[in-house]
Amino acid sequence: MLGYLGPEGSYSHICAKKIAEVFALSPLIPYKTISEIYKALEQKEINFGLLPVENSLGGSVPETLDNLLFAPQSLQVRLEWVLMIEHCLIGFDLNINEIRAHFQAFAQCDNYLNKYYANANKKEMSSNSSAALSLLNEKENKAAICSKEAAELYKIPIIAEKINDFTENFTRFWLAGWENLPPKNNNQNLISLAFRIPQDLPGGLVRVLGPIAERGINLSKIESRPTKSRLCEYSFYIDLINSSKADQELLKELQSLCSYFKFLGNYPVWPLNDLRFLGN
Amino acid sequence: MLGYLGPEGSYSHICAKKIAEVFALSPLIPYKTISEIYKALEQKEINFGLLPVENSLGGSVPETLDNLLFAPQSLQVRLEWVLMIEHCLIGFDLNINEIRAHFQAFAQCDNYLNKYYANANKKEMSSNSSAALSLLNEKENKAAICSKEAAELYKIPIIAEKINDFTENFTRFWLAGWENLPPKNNNQNLISLAFRIPQDLPGGLVRVLGPIAERGINLSKIESRPTKSRLCEYSFYIDLINSSKADQELLKELQSLCSYFKFLGNYPVWPLNDLRFLGN
Repeated sequence: MLGYLGPEGSYSHICAKKIAEVFALSPLIPYKTISEIYKALEQKEINFGLLPVENSLGGSVPETLDNLLFAPQSLQVRLEWVLMIEHCLIGFDLNINEIRAHFQAFAQCDNYLNKYYANANKKEMSSNSSAALSLLNEKENKAAICSKEAAELYKIPIIAEKINDFTENFTRFWLAGWENLPPKNNNQNLISLAFRIPQDLPGGLVRVLGPIAERGINLSKIESRPTKSRLCEYSFYIDLINSSKADQELLKELQSLCSYFKFLGNYPVWPLNDLRFLGN
Repeated sequence: MLGYLGPEGSYSHICAKKIAEVFALSPLIPYKTISEIYKALEQKEINFGLLPVENSLGGSVPETLDNLLFAPQSLQVRLEWVLMIEHCLIGFDLNINEIRAHFQAFAQCDNYLNKYYANANKKEMSSNSSAALSLLNEKENKAAICSKEAAELYKIPIIAEKINDFTENFTRFWLAGWENLPPKNNNQNLISLAFRIPQDLPGGLVRVLGPIAERGINLSKIESRPTKSRLCEYSFYIDLINSSKADQELLKELQSLCSYFKFLGNYPVWPLNDLRFLGN
C-alpha cells in the first residue's frame, strides 16, 4: 500500500512506480494533498507514503517537512529517491496558439518558450497532468508541458523533449513509513534531523553543528523554518551524510543542546550513489 | 518607479502601496513574474523592485534568492517589509457551491473550508486576485478567497474575515534597488549574505558561522539551496541581526573562508521592531 500525490502521470506517480518496482510494493493509491497522505499513514490505511521534499529549482516543500515534524516518532523516512525532472512539450497539432501547464513548469521552461513560442498564450493549470489531460478534448492549436511518462500514459504525441532550461532539475522524494524496507544494496544513507535551539542562546546553532563537524560528518542540507505557531520561533532541518559516524552518543549530545529534537529517519538514497556534498 | 508582482489587489500590491506611502515612491508598476522585475531593475526601467522572499507557511521563494545571487553587486536589498497575510472569503451570494482561489490559499484555509464549506467545489486559479475578479461576471453560488484589500478594490462583499487556519501567516518582502532609501526611524537592520564553501572541506559551515557567533551576532535565517548549474554544489543564504556588530573586518574574514561570497544588503525591517530571533 503506497500512497502518492496524484493524479496518475504526475512526477510523484512516476517516482512511486520506480520504487514499487524495486521493492515490490502494491497497490499505488493516489491522494490529492500531502496532508491527506499523512492522515492515511497515521490511520495506517497505507504502509508507505511518498512525499516530495525538495526541488532543485523550486526549493523545499514545507508541507512535507512540517507534517513530519509533528508525526508520531516511529513514522520515519525509510527511503529517498532523487528523480530527474524532464519536461516535454506535447500535443496533437504543431500549429500552437496556446500552451497549458502548471505555473512552475512555465517558469522552468521560460527560455525555451520565449525562443520558440513567444506568441502563444500561456494557460496556467492546477497540474501538468491536468494540462495534458485537457488536450484529449481540445486537440487543435493546443499544447501542454508534462513528463514523457504522462505523454505516454495519455497517448499524446511528444513535440519536443527536455525543454527545461536547466538540465539539473531534480526532485527529492521521501518514502515515509512505519517500518524499514528490506536492505537492497550499498547505497549511502542520510540521517535527517529537526530541532529547535533555546531562545536567547547566541551561538546555539554553532554549538549544535560543532559535534557533527568534529566527527567528520558532512551536511547535505540545512534550513531554518518559522514554526507555525509562533512568529519568533524557528525550527532547523539538517541532513547528515556519512551516517555511519552518527552514533547514539552523538544524537544524545545534540538532543541535550536543543529545546526540541526529532529524529526523522536514517535511510538509503536511490538511485544515485554520488551524494550531494554540502561541505558542512 | 516601484515594480511589484501583479495583478492589482495581490499581496505584493498591498505591500507596495504601504512602502510607497512611507517613502513617497511612485508610480507602482505591475509585472507578471519575479524574473521580469529583475530584468526591469537591471535595465534601470525601475528604481526599486518588490520581491516576496519567504512566507511563514509556504517557505522561501527561490526565484527571488537565485536572481539576486547573480545580480550586479550594487543592486542590493534596501528594505524588508513583513506583511501579515489575512485571507477573506468574498462573494455576492451566500449560497455557495464553488470556491475559487490559488492552491496555496486553499491549503492555508483548509480547516475553515472543511468546517463550513466541505461540499463546495474548489476551483484552483492562477492567483487569488484573478479568483476575485472572476466573481464580477459570475455572481451566483460562487465565492473566492483573497485579501480584504482586493475585496475592497473590486467592490465584492466580504462574507468572512481572517479565515486562515494559522494566524501567524506572514510574508517577508524585499525591496531591491540601486540606492538606499532615506533613513526614516530606528528600525533594526538585517544583513543578508549568500556564500558557498569550498568542496571537500568538512566543518566549513561551522568555520563560517564561528566568527559570527563569536561577535554575539545572531542569525534570523539560514538556508542551503542547490546551485542551479551543478547537482552537487550548494549555496547558503543567511540573515544576520545585530547588524551593527557586523563590520568590514568580519565580512572580509567570512569572504576568506568562502569559495564564493555575495553581500546582498544591509537594510531596515518594517514595520516590526521585534525581529525574529533564531538563536544563531
